[in-house]
Amino acid sequence: MSTMYTQTPFTLPLLGRGSHLITADIVKNVPDIAKIKCGLLHLFLQHTSAALTLNENYDQDVRKDMSTSLDRLVPEDSEGKGLYLHDDEGEDDMPAHIKCALIGASVSVPITNGKLNTGTWQGIWFLEFRNGKNRRKVLATVQGEKL
Amino acid sequence: MSTMYTQTPFTLPLLGRGSHLITADIVKNVPDIAKIKCGLLHLFLQHTSAALTLNENYDQDVRKDMSTSLDRLVPEDSEGKGLYLHDDEGEDDMPAHIKCALIGASVSVPITNGKLNTGTWQGIWFLEFRNGKNRRKVLATVQGEKL
Amino acid sequence: MSTMYTQTPFTLPLLGRGSHLITADIVKNVPDIAKIKCGLLHLFLQHTSAALTLNENYDQDVRKDMSTSLDRLVPEDSEGKGLYLHDDEGEDDMPAHIKCALIGASVSVPITNGKLNTGTWQGIWFLEFRNGKNRRKVLATVQGEKL
Repeated sequence: MSTMYTQTPFTLPLLGRGSHLITADIVKNVPDIAKIKCGLLHLFLQHTSAALTLNENYDQDVRKDMSTSLDRLVPEDSEGKGLYLHDDEGEDDMPAHIKCALIGASVSVPITNGKLNTGTWQGIWFLEFRNGKNRRKVLATVQGEKL
Repeated sequence: MSTMYTQTPFTLPLLGRGSHLITADIVKNVPDIAKIKCGLLHLFLQHTSAALTLNENYDQDVRKDMSTSLDRLVPEDSEGKGLYLHDDEGEDDMPAHIKCALIGASVSVPITNGKLNTGTWQGIWFLEFRNGKNRRKVLATVQGEKL
Repeated sequence: MSTMYTQTPFTLPLLGRGSHLITADIVKNVPDIAKIKCGLLHLFLQHTSAALTLNENYDQDVRKDMSTSLDRLVPEDSEGKGLYLHDDEGEDDMPAHIKCALIGASVSVPITNGKLNTGTWQGIWFLEFRNGKNRRKVLATVQGEKL
């Protein structure tokens, strides 16, 4: 068996606050996925106020509902209740860190015969929790038995 | 050192909504765990409305409390408040996607000398968030140095 | 290419309830990180009432806010509302299990040229959810192409 490890750093498209389906961006930016017979793709977001996860890849209402539901769970302190000590960068700052911890900054996805082996309705999501558009960096690690 | 990667797809037992301890099902369905001296088991649920995690393996009240607590955190819209846009498949649909994002669809567990190297009180949990019983598919990737 | 897998068990410093930055403890306890050209560090906490995650490494207010925000999301039953069935070990017991499921008991971090390849503001966090100080065990699995 011949094993390989490769890493590919790349930046995501400029995306505003919200939940975004990025499966196609990942496949385009990580061509080494096609070289693996049996292995794993590890995606690591190098930031603390955005997140990566897997979820529904079809109805974009699911992505809208995800963002509004996370906003309800982790509210911004718009009424000045003193919810957070850390507010240097604005009301969206600390809630973004908390959402990042709840959702997570990385995902691992199986690779089988050169393709991501996700379920029929599963896609890779990027969640931006800050206002404005930010250049977000991802480090992809591909590992496994070579094709 | 001799390295191996193997993948095993399997279906979980038919389990209703709730939190379930599945460590024994995993060990039974993934015999390659026994072949690894030092490595990792990656379990990947190919669905977006259920989850995998690690938690307490003893008192089943912990599993009940987990499910009722997640229901409180991510309520169904039983009073028609318009909490969710996406409700095609019923009131349990969108909350299930959100719980999946919060808990996660995969876990990685160390393997040492042919056995899962979990803590004394740690077990692998499957959480079903939809009503009814669903056939849920898992893809197990085993990797590491061979025994 | 020469591949390696190693596992290192270690205990974290005695830390009280709260969120703690432990990047330096990890690097000190897992010297094999320095041997990897391209690979991954998997940290696995062998407990069910504490967690590991990645978040902001600079302002300690972020760590305080994380803990108080998780306490708001998953409250202790201080008013005896019967929120939890499982309360053998005190009011902090069941909320700790739920926070563990929300945040997660493990993280995977890329290693590049002998160093953790985290973002500028990213650090490894340990979150203790129980009162008192507990000896918490971590199992580190290092894998990848050797330097």
